[in-house]
Amino acid sequence: MPHREHGPRGGPDGTEERRRRSAEQAHRELAQQLRVDSLRCSTRAGSGHPSSSLSAADLMAVLLRDYLRWDLSHPENPNNDHVIFSKGHASPLLYAMLKAVGVISDAELLSYRRFRSPLEGHPVPTLPWVEVATGSLGQGLPVGVGIALSGKYLEKVPYRVWVLLGDSEMSEGSIWEAFDHARHYRLGNVIAILDMNRLGQRGQTPLGWSSAAYAARARAFGWRALEIDGHDPAAISGAYAEALRAPDAPALIVARTMKGKGVSLLEDKDGWHGKALNEAQCAKAIEELGGARDIVIEPEAPAPGERAPRPAAEPLRLPSYERSTDVATRRAYGDALKALGAARADIVAVDAEVNNSTYAEEFAKAHPDRYFEMFISEQQMVAAAVGLSVRRWSPFASTFAAFLTRAYDFLRMAAVSRANLRVCGSHAGVSIGEDGPSQMGLEDLAMMRAVHGSTVLYPCCANQTARLVAAMADQKGIVYLRTTREKTPVLYDATEAFPIGGSKVLRHAPHDRVTIIAAGITVHEALKAHAELEASGLSARVVDAYSIKPIDATGIREAVRATAGNAIVVEDHWAEGGLGDAVLECLAGEEPIVARVVHLAVREMPCSGTPAELLHAAGLDASSIAGAARRLVSDAARAAGASSP
Amino acid sequence: MPHREHGPRGGPDGTEERRRRSAEQAHRELAQQLRVDSLRCSTRAGSGHPSSSLSAADLMAVLLRDYLRWDLSHPENPNNDHVIFSKGHASPLLYAMLKAVGVISDAELLSYRRFRSPLEGHPVPTLPWVEVATGSLGQGLPVGVGIALSGKYLEKVPYRVWVLLGDSEMSEGSIWEAFDHARHYRLGNVIAILDMNRLGQRGQTPLGWSSAAYAARARAFGWRALEIDGHDPAAISGAYAEALRAPDAPALIVARTMKGKGVSLLEDKDGWHGKALNEAQCAKAIEELGGARDIVIEPEAPAPGERAPRPAAEPLRLPSYERSTDVATRRAYGDALKALGAARADIVAVDAEVNNSTYAEEFAKAHPDRYFEMFISEQQMVAAAVGLSVRRWSPFASTFAAFLTRAYDFLRMAAVSRANLRVCGSHAGVSIGEDGPSQMGLEDLAMMRAVHGSTVLYPCCANQTARLVAAMADQKGIVYLRTTREKTPVLYDATEAFPIGGSKVLRHAPHDRVTIIAAGITVHEALKAHAELEASGLSARVVDAYSIKPIDATGIREAVRATAGNAIVVEDHWAEGGLGDAVLECLAGEEPIVARVVHLAVREMPCSGTPAELLHAAGLDASSIAGAARRLVSDAARAAGASSP
Repeated sequence: MPHREHGPRGGPDGTEERRRRSAEQAHRELAQQLRVDSLRCSTRAGSGHPSSSLSAADLMAVLLRDYLRWDLSHPENPNNDHVIFSKGHASPLLYAMLKAVGVISDAELLSYRRFRSPLEGHPVPTLPWVEVATGSLGQGLPVGVGIALSGKYLEKVPYRVWVLLGDSEMSEGSIWEAFDHARHYRLGNVIAILDMNRLGQRGQTPLGWSSAAYAARARAFGWRALEIDGHDPAAISGAYAEALRAPDAPALIVARTMKGKGVSLLEDKDGWHGKALNEAQCAKAIEELGGARDIVIEPEAPAPGERAPRPAAEPLRLPSYERSTDVATRRAYGDALKALGAARADIVAVDAEVNNSTYAEEFAKAHPDRYFEMFISEQQMVAAAVGLSVRRWSPFASTFAAFLTRAYDFLRMAAVSRANLRVCGSHAGVSIGEDGPSQMGLEDLAMMRAVHGSTVLYPCCANQTARLVAAMADQKGIVYLRTTREKTPVLYDATEAFPIGGSKVLRHAPHDRVTIIAAGITVHEALKAHAELEASGLSARVVDAYSIKPIDATGIREAVRATAGNAIVVEDHWAEGGLGDAVLECLAGEEPIVARVVHLAVREMPCSGTPAELLHAAGLDASSIAGAARRLVSDAARAAGASSP
Repeated sequence: MPHREHGPRGGPDGTEERRRRSAEQAHRELAQQLRVDSLRCSTRAGSGHPSSSLSAADLMAVLLRDYLRWDLSHPENPNNDHVIFSKGHASPLLYAMLKAVGVISDAELLSYRRFRSPLEGHPVPTLPWVEVATGSLGQGLPVGVGIALSGKYLEKVPYRVWVLLGDSEMSEGSIWEAFDHARHYRLGNVIAILDMNRLGQRGQTPLGWSSAAYAARARAFGWRALEIDGHDPAAISGAYAEALRAPDAPALIVARTMKGKGVSLLEDKDGWHGKALNEAQCAKAIEELGGARDIVIEPEAPAPGERAPRPAAEPLRLPSYERSTDVATRRAYGDALKALGAARADIVAVDAEVNNSTYAEEFAKAHPDRYFEMFISEQQMVAAAVGLSVRRWSPFASTFAAFLTRAYDFLRMAAVSRANLRVCGSHAGVSIGEDGPSQMGLEDLAMMRAVHGSTVLYPCCANQTARLVAAMADQKGIVYLRTTREKTPVLYDATEAFPIGGSKVLRHAPHDRVTIIAAGITVHEALKAHAELEASGLSARVVDAYSIKPIDATGIREAVRATAGNAIVVEDHWAEGGLGDAVLECLAGEEPIVARVVHLAVREMPCSGTPAELLHAAGLDASSIAGAARRLVSDAARAAGASSP
């Protein structure tokens, strides 16, 4: 495999054996450089994981010198290989590699872990050639599966996805979700390299150096597995070559290594995880490694291959629904996603084996080539979406809102990865009825609001849902849409606009005495409560706060101010972290609205029952809202009377 | 294996072959009864998963009749076997079993899925003999591992843990975490029964009827695996007997079944997942199944065996720390947990391979027999704690706060299971420094507040931490403690009390003009800000809100009222769902405090840096707090001036 190399190394010298030896020597020299640079930057930083970097240096040296295809002058070249450090704590090694290919300078290398340096403690994609954030173990491989899906099925380009795994992270279930899906989708473009250095953070891993055990697991999951000495360049090279030979089977290379390899102070020693050497230790270690080197590698160029063309966008024809018919918002999600997929070739969808509940099946049926079934693997589902986002697709991921909790670490990390991800959680709240609390999304708003830079939407009507689904496709960051299981009346015209960050005043009159702020299912209860209150002479304002984050602070403040500060917030969610808190945040602040806010939310563990029974039991139905409104208005009047002279 | 049986079934009739046939007939009859009852209750309910119940009826009939050891008159008998429906949607089958042993009546069976019936859509432990809630797939087996750990290592009793698995849930990574740990801990008391009915919710599972593939995976994970026809009573019985033969190796029985078995309308048919038959279909199906039966089974009695005695509690000697020394709260967590373990034999601990960071290693070293290493498997860690809670231990589970997000679905379900669980998340917030955002717990308060019935604690001082750890042990429900990586000054005497739901006023003077509400790391910044403000003549009150949920509404309202409504909340957490929202909730309500609240929280994605740099960049350090306080007080004065005549 061709490569160019600059620096103090001799060229080939004629005979096969000499060439082999020379190559081996070149690998060893490069590996030592990677080790030295890993030590230098971590010692300078005073923290980091040098010992976890040293174990994988030979693996990465061979990769960089002979296998990795990176068109350094064209980072956007769709045929570039992908490298993911699933063991993100080995970041010094990754940065040493980037220095060795000339992407970062030595001075940049030495900025490792400094404030605002792009060379963070764990990799983040603010640095070129880093595409996803890692550091929460067990995520790199599942995200790699998403990137590989794009290469094989969508872009149809010959890039490979090289994933460096730590042995500790093999205990994460998400790793096995990735193994399962890489097999299912025959992702021969995935090569996972297991740096089996035996030692975790606090002692030996469960399998230690049981190379055969890892290989057996991989094979049982349908992968090819190769067991090698991870410090032998020839063995490593042979394994990479072998791994590339089967285009339809992913490969795991189980590389037996030593943590801290090459430095006697560290080699195979427990107690050195996540510890930098001091200056003196570092100097001695560098000496032991043969001193600093300045090898610069130019990786092989990517294989030729045209990215599959994307058809041009067509006009978007969103579904529309008749006013006052009953349509579930989850159904509208599916219809709108299908329409979006017809208009835009960049829309892709994944679902966790419930697409006939989330209605993602509408998209799957209409655009089967852009749909990936992720089975009951929510972590892998979100990770695949992150990988698809890396390849500039616009991924929509859906499952029950309750089961998105399974993927919270992946959603959190997706924000660190600066991914653009659209997520739909169906079956929100107690209103799902008989299935009971295990299936009720009751913490999803809290969870998704607390994702950095997220957008959280919660429509109450099918037409509104369709508009919001369209808006999601262009919204940056992690965008969440909450849908309802039950059919609900269509409230809005199909032509109505619903900007993100907006709200709608559904009922208002000049002498409104209380504002009812609702979203999703509770909007319908609020409207019924409004009618009930109106019949008894109490005029209420009803606000549909479909944009939970960002919330329409201006609109809500105005409504609450107009009703003398009397407000009821009603949501089908636990009392913490959802719409109630969002409303309080926009009423508070440096120019607070003086308000009496009654917060109706789920406060007891629900059980099975009909949607109506459960909404009533949780105090979220029309009669509960109307009762709360009457009490609030009368208490406020009494308080005003008491405080007037 | 002895059992007694009542009802219209003939006794043994002499010859071996006849006995075998008779037993087989008895199994078949019981299985048909379980099928009929599964149909009856789901049809009556109008919803549920009868087809997923029918596939496993033979498996459960043999279990119930010949293998399960339940002392029905003594549910608290520690030697009783445990049955977990990991495929919780097959609840009709579980309830049919409970009816067949006489634990519930037919009338109760027919209350399935009705409002307030304990026979919920998915099992919850409000029903006798149901010990954990299931319904989020992939959780039953990991929880079973926790129960099995107790039986084998703590109680040392001969119970077995029978787990019924669905094939769809084999895609959940958490299942493989459980396989891994059951092997590691040689849990021969775990028998997993895989109801391989081929069909998921929306089509075929990834492995379909590839019995050998499941068996190979199980074997690669160190289990024994048996492949059988799941509708052949003799084969089932043989497999159970074989599974029980190896006391140190868990066993998976891969049972090939048909979804909807026994009812031609449903058998092996796609499109029937989660659908009840209508009355006419049900009547026809019951006829096809040979009609209703009324067999009552008395399961075998548990094996004898005394539960290992627990030593009596000793006086608790909590660690104490000198005022003004610097001690990390995570260190105090470890010290206190160790002390708690010495005083009380019911305290057990689990950690996800970071016990030298969380300091759970202090407990592990002192009480190795009550510590279980869960490696990097946060889902399994929480599930094991739930299982230990089922067996009435007081489990403490710890990892980095950031990585608890990995287990959010398990934490949510632990609340549905009514588990008593103590969870510690270390390395909270940007103050961890150089490791970067992947390691920073910034959403943990939001996540844990939104767990039903949870308690959320966040100490700022080592002595306070020790007291709160002691309080956790007796607190019901899911109790969360957030600790800090950095050393912080010891603020309180070791004798000071910290009731859950309380707060502490750390600085106050008669003419305080602003209240600074802080918790954990920000308490120290608030105190420095107080000193800085005092030097410039501005008197501030400082509140340590160590109990985030329940929050000390009385104390905080009083403090904020005393400072004319001027309040600053400062927290090392995203702006959503944490202390800020908790404070707003207690100021709002029907008797609101008129307050101007400035909320200092993390609002931009952090990077690496020193703790001081990151606290400053996020606007959480002393100078940021002091600046915000000055602005707030001056704005308030200006507003008061403007509004005065």
